[in-house]
Amino acid sequence: MDPLTEALLMFAGRRDHLLEVIEPALARGDVVLCDRFTDATFAYQGFGREFDCVALQSLESLVQRTPSLPAPKIRQPDVTLWFDVDPAVAASRLAGVRVPDRFEAQPQEFFARVSKGYAWRMQQYRARFARINAEQGLEKVWQEVEAALRQRGFLP
Amino acid sequence: MDPLTEALLMFAGRRDHLLEVIEPALARGDVVLCDRFTDATFAYQGFGREFDCVALQSLESLVQRTPSLPAPKIRQPDVTLWFDVDPAVAASRLAGVRVPDRFEAQPQEFFARVSKGYAWRMQQYRARFARINAEQGLEKVWQEVEAALRQRGFLP
Repeated sequence: MDPLTEALLMFAGRRDHLLEVIEPALARGDVVLCDRFTDATFAYQGFGREFDCVALQSLESLVQRTPSLPAPKIRQPDVTLWFDVDPAVAASRLAGVRVPDRFEAQPQEFFARVSKGYAWRMQQYRARFARINAEQGLEKVWQEVEAALRQRGFLP
Repeated sequence: MDPLTEALLMFAGRRDHLLEVIEPALARGDVVLCDRFTDATFAYQGFGREFDCVALQSLESLVQRTPSLPAPKIRQPDVTLWFDVDPAVAASRLAGVRVPDRFEAQPQEFFARVSKGYAWRMQQYRARFARINAEQGLEKVWQEVEAALRQRGFLP
């Protein structure tokens, strides 16, 4: 599929998710936890598929505008946890669990680019981005997550 | 549905159509005839649903870029035939043919705005836009179409 067609479909899904699920939840005062958000779009479409990041930025600022924030502010996560793991380690972990989907089935060079995409976003959004070393065991990973949330005032 | 979600889905469809159908046909030297294109998006989403035309313009220039044209040129029709007809006449004609879809089922004020949308686009693209008085009979309508094509060099 053409990467822009794919990006438009993803952003249509994101817009729907934002207005139908996330904004109402935030309005109720709920905590919203997303598996992936637009940082993943930059990592996978922008860097992984080497698609124009300027086009993605213009879609991001269009789609993440919301009536609950004064323009030009857009909805962004308060915290982004980047679970960074070597593609080979990720592949071997995944192999034990399920058949890879069409993103997961990409070659390892793809995931090396994806990782650079997350690093690029982290440079732009230092305050909310926490890189977690996800090659460690579960307990250590959790400790890093807790530390990242505590540091940003989301845990006592 | 949120108008931006709808617009993103439409532009995803347009992108796919452009790359998979239109560009290959143009490359073969075929004549491409589309029932609707982006002018209709401005008329229906922009004016009909009163959605931000600046956002639509940024989607248009993103989606209609094509490898076959040097940037910042974008793919546009050579001729746009606007079959202008009073909403009441259109409704009575349609009633004899089929059940209206979710656009066709809108109230007449909606179609009055749609018409303004086409007029707005026509002001920006005078050279390619031909307004056809479609309230006339079939023969007269066809004569206007022929004249519009002849005037632009597409008929001898």
